[in-house]
Amino acid sequence: MQFHENGFVAGDPERSQAARNMGEQPDTLPKRADVLIVGCGPAGLTLATQLSAFADISTVIVDKKQGPMTFGQADGIACRTMEMFEAFSFSEKILKESYWVNETTFWRPDSKQPAHIVRSDRMQDTEDGLSEFPHVILSQARVHDRYLEKMAQNAYPIHPFYARNLKTLTIDRALASQLERYPVRAEFEVTDAEGNIRVEVIEARFAVGCDGAHSAVRAQLGYQLEGDSVNSAWGVMDVLAVTDFPDIRMKSAIHSAEEGSMLIIPREGGHMVRLYIEIAKLRENERLAREEITLEHLIAAAQRIIHPYQIEVKDTVWWSVYQIGQRVCASFDDLPEHRSSDAFPRVFIAGDACHTHSPKAGQGMNVSMADAFNLGWKMAAVINQQSSPALLHSYSQERHAVAYELIEFDKQIAKLFSSRNSTQNDIKDSAENNSIAEAFQQYFQKHARYTAGVETRYEAGLLTQINASQALATGFPEGMRFHSAPAIRLADAKPVHLGHCIKADGRWRLFAFARPIADHQDRLGGISALCQFLETDEASPVVKYSPSDKPADYLFDLRVIFQESFREVELEIMPEFLMPRQGSLGLKDYEKIFCADKRPDENVFDMRGIDRQTGCIVIVRPDQYVATILPLEDIHGLAAYFDRFMPIE
Amino acid sequence: MQFHENGFVAGDPERSQAARNMGEQPDTLPKRADVLIVGCGPAGLTLATQLSAFADISTVIVDKKQGPMTFGQADGIACRTMEMFEAFSFSEKILKESYWVNETTFWRPDSKQPAHIVRSDRMQDTEDGLSEFPHVILSQARVHDRYLEKMAQNAYPIHPFYARNLKTLTIDRALASQLERYPVRAEFEVTDAEGNIRVEVIEARFAVGCDGAHSAVRAQLGYQLEGDSVNSAWGVMDVLAVTDFPDIRMKSAIHSAEEGSMLIIPREGGHMVRLYIEIAKLRENERLAREEITLEHLIAAAQRIIHPYQIEVKDTVWWSVYQIGQRVCASFDDLPEHRSSDAFPRVFIAGDACHTHSPKAGQGMNVSMADAFNLGWKMAAVINQQSSPALLHSYSQERHAVAYELIEFDKQIAKLFSSRNSTQNDIKDSAENNSIAEAFQQYFQKHARYTAGVETRYEAGLLTQINASQALATGFPEGMRFHSAPAIRLADAKPVHLGHCIKADGRWRLFAFARPIADHQDRLGGISALCQFLETDEASPVVKYSPSDKPADYLFDLRVIFQESFREVELEIMPEFLMPRQGSLGLKDYEKIFCADKRPDENVFDMRGIDRQTGCIVIVRPDQYVATILPLEDIHGLAAYFDRFMPIE
Repeated sequence: MQFHENGFVAGDPERSQAARNMGEQPDTLPKRADVLIVGCGPAGLTLATQLSAFADISTVIVDKKQGPMTFGQADGIACRTMEMFEAFSFSEKILKESYWVNETTFWRPDSKQPAHIVRSDRMQDTEDGLSEFPHVILSQARVHDRYLEKMAQNAYPIHPFYARNLKTLTIDRALASQLERYPVRAEFEVTDAEGNIRVEVIEARFAVGCDGAHSAVRAQLGYQLEGDSVNSAWGVMDVLAVTDFPDIRMKSAIHSAEEGSMLIIPREGGHMVRLYIEIAKLRENERLAREEITLEHLIAAAQRIIHPYQIEVKDTVWWSVYQIGQRVCASFDDLPEHRSSDAFPRVFIAGDACHTHSPKAGQGMNVSMADAFNLGWKMAAVINQQSSPALLHSYSQERHAVAYELIEFDKQIAKLFSSRNSTQNDIKDSAENNSIAEAFQQYFQKHARYTAGVETRYEAGLLTQINASQALATGFPEGMRFHSAPAIRLADAKPVHLGHCIKADGRWRLFAFARPIADHQDRLGGISALCQFLETDEASPVVKYSPSDKPADYLFDLRVIFQESFREVELEIMPEFLMPRQGSLGLKDYEKIFCADKRPDENVFDMRGIDRQTGCIVIVRPDQYVATILPLEDIHGLAAYFDRFMPIE
Repeated sequence: MQFHENGFVAGDPERSQAARNMGEQPDTLPKRADVLIVGCGPAGLTLATQLSAFADISTVIVDKKQGPMTFGQADGIACRTMEMFEAFSFSEKILKESYWVNETTFWRPDSKQPAHIVRSDRMQDTEDGLSEFPHVILSQARVHDRYLEKMAQNAYPIHPFYARNLKTLTIDRALASQLERYPVRAEFEVTDAEGNIRVEVIEARFAVGCDGAHSAVRAQLGYQLEGDSVNSAWGVMDVLAVTDFPDIRMKSAIHSAEEGSMLIIPREGGHMVRLYIEIAKLRENERLAREEITLEHLIAAAQRIIHPYQIEVKDTVWWSVYQIGQRVCASFDDLPEHRSSDAFPRVFIAGDACHTHSPKAGQGMNVSMADAFNLGWKMAAVINQQSSPALLHSYSQERHAVAYELIEFDKQIAKLFSSRNSTQNDIKDSAENNSIAEAFQQYFQKHARYTAGVETRYEAGLLTQINASQALATGFPEGMRFHSAPAIRLADAKPVHLGHCIKADGRWRLFAFARPIADHQDRLGGISALCQFLETDEASPVVKYSPSDKPADYLFDLRVIFQESFREVELEIMPEFLMPRQGSLGLKDYEKIFCADKRPDENVFDMRGIDRQTGCIVIVRPDQYVATILPLEDIHGLAAYFDRFMPIE
């Protein structure tokens, strides 16, 4: 964490001067905003928090609810999402408060006594080295709290406007082609504390619908979710219970012989547990209305499934019934399929507004936040005139593919989970049961990486350049998230995670892995030449695209990693470009230069398959995805990458 | 972190119900309090935060300043202090914001060119495995903020009263022998916002002077600090500077040939740095008044010492001048040296009020907080009638010894630091210089454990029982702090640190390391027998001392560690005593049982030299110190230990 660069400021360094200066929020919407976000769920809050990092972008976020969420709904936080939380600087708070999923156990009917369940297998939940973060479980409400806190502290402090119900949203196509205009017009009904209703209107340059499966923004765009709705119903409840079931604090998948299936997800605080309970088993082959199922039904089913163990529910915090349906929207923005690359999409949808699926794989909240994280920096770059509108088109392209993948995954897992209740529900012998349970288990294991959120791979396209240099850094696959690894910071010998340099500030990272410095002809293993190019060459993206009145690392943040130990590398001989001046006092930034951590199993060059003789540059997007790998000396390739989308007409 | 044990509560789980219910703090002192703390420095805030954990103890803390500290003064946080912060549940916040001291470098005159300094050596600041926490640097003001936040959230929420100047403090000896009486009477002058002065009086059962080197409480007791005052003056300044000195982000000790010495302590935020600069070099052999030294003198001296490097100070955040003086008070409580063991000491002093020393070894704030951490749980135990008054006598005994040790250490380090300016200041050849620098360096290295705060060892006495069973757990020395080690929690397979079970809640911890469970005759490697004794035997401290209307683990928190992997141990066969019921819903506590972490270098049985065949019990005090080690089957020894001080007349 860096601060005091403009002189000492007392108090919380995470609180911006703007946040300190901010008065009371007005109780009516402003007339205009750069970005209007509809919906304070995970997608909306991620997007608002991302945009709040930009002092010059005005963002307004609204929700139809009366105030912040206090409990219920999603709870799974994938490793990949924790990595994103680190970019938002609150991962440590989530780590502290959450349940950590360390082990998954599988229970099946006992072959000798099929009415009893027995533990058939167990597996580590997340394979070693998959991420520096664990897979955790925490109430969505507490994730919201962290975002609300962060966005209120940032450079453009944001507080949501609640109790706003979207009535109409229109786009003035005549204005849409000019970036600086406000073509989006939204009308909200507002219910005040006395129950009186008034109408508020806001104009925006861009709007994003993060308003859930029944999205009003999507409806205004005339879009629909398309896909199957499968006739399988599940109950979900968060309970405080007393049980003798030994794995109540493990994630456990239970397939009983006669009573259906149940998934146990332990929750934060050491006591609460979420139970997913199959209820199609109760009423077969028909759609269910929530009213037909009572809490008592769910508890009774849980008690039958868990036999011979007992479970006594002491308190039910929240419960619901859902029917699995996988649906996706054909486009995630307002432009037609055949579009001009210089047109500005003006309205986007994200999260459940564009894809729905079952909650059991724990993907919904994670994929929604990832949608918004993909979109936020792109909007900021276009609004701040640092990139062409083509960047905005990539949102729908990239995230639509992810949504399709998710839905395919969810269909399979839902099928496996529900297979005892398919039309062949007369197949009841235990051999059959066990083979279904085994298939489920195998599928679960195979897809642990997928559910961890680290398998997303953006295809070759505007932002992902898949090329021959991948061999120079085999552990940083192009198109996938930058898989963090440890290093030692040269200036202060601190062990750090390289990936944690990537904060949610909209900047591109260039990680340059140096050749050996022993060869003095090569001047710092190739780093001197790279710095010289970036600083002075007219083809350099820094020279071409970074505003001259901003610090050299304003758009492009170069980080260098040497393969020698920090005791073998002298800070004195580093180029000034690697210690750029910060703030009004012109203080040096000492956090750009790293050395390999020489402890066994901690060396990034080994862990990520870096070619020590060639060295390489890893270009990382502001949302932590690897754009491409280049040889260290390929300065033309480096320049060419950014020339694809940075020039503005 | 455990919560929701009385049912689900929305929002921050670290905020108690009492804190949620609390209204505005009145603007006058209450008439009475169980404990009055004078002084909102590190000692006072540690003590108040510790006492705020007890819902039934009313604590008032006052300070003569107008409000919380915002900058300056102490900054070093030893590993041991971080361990204590973990007990207060805010270590992660300090870790995030602080500078981490990873490496110390030593600079001496260049033998070929004595006017130039060169790096002569470097060492890792904290040896591997010394603590699970690093040595860090953070403004005292931010440590205060964490305490203020925590005490306001706890079971007895506390907000300080500022602008209170202690005028008199008296003890009514006639009342002092009865615990429930309020023999302490304190009179404060209060200056209100308009500058008007009024007098407030408060009566307390106990009072603690944490009011610094010029303690008014100490003066009221008629005590004085005793010891030498050495004629060596140093300047200290926190600056934002630009320099080409390569180790500006390392802790660096510089001995120049002609210009004196300087210690560089990098600070939080990546830019700020603290410089300790020898100024006796400027004016020799005389005492200095602060007025004689200007900031410009200090900066000029720093620039001369660091030659041939340059340093340009851009902003000075804070600066001061001090003269090294080591002094200690003969007693830390109000009772005479020859005292009856059943008398109640009623007034204590802690921190700088009882010992002063130089700041350069970074011990002042740490030792002050450790004083208060030693005292807090003892006061709570006596006030809550869980222990005899003898417990309170141990405070002065234990901490006085620590203060003497500190002063001896400080004298030596100050002498080494200042040795170029001693009466032999004519010795200026570089060989001599280098040998002094070398002696300093050796001393520094040798005492790295001491400065880390982990060398404190309480002698055999009321609370420390040094006996033959130490051999059963060689890595948990009796009388020293419980050196945390990793383990895997059985119920949820979470990797945890055993020491982090020890929260600042006034409870005793019994860590029972089991024998192998393969021997079924031995019933869970001896754990079943131990549980049975603790739960049912009339000699058991749980049976004798734990209030019957409280949970079984209210005073004694048993934690069990098996040497087998968590996959080899079944939760189902554990005694109920190890899963005690919590809260109004009677939910099970699943966080008492652990297994060895089988990864290399992570196995607590190896790391702490636990005898696998015998097993053992480690009794740990509420302030994390090892009271004694006993064989696993020595239930009589266990009972006898607590019988020493728990029975009340």
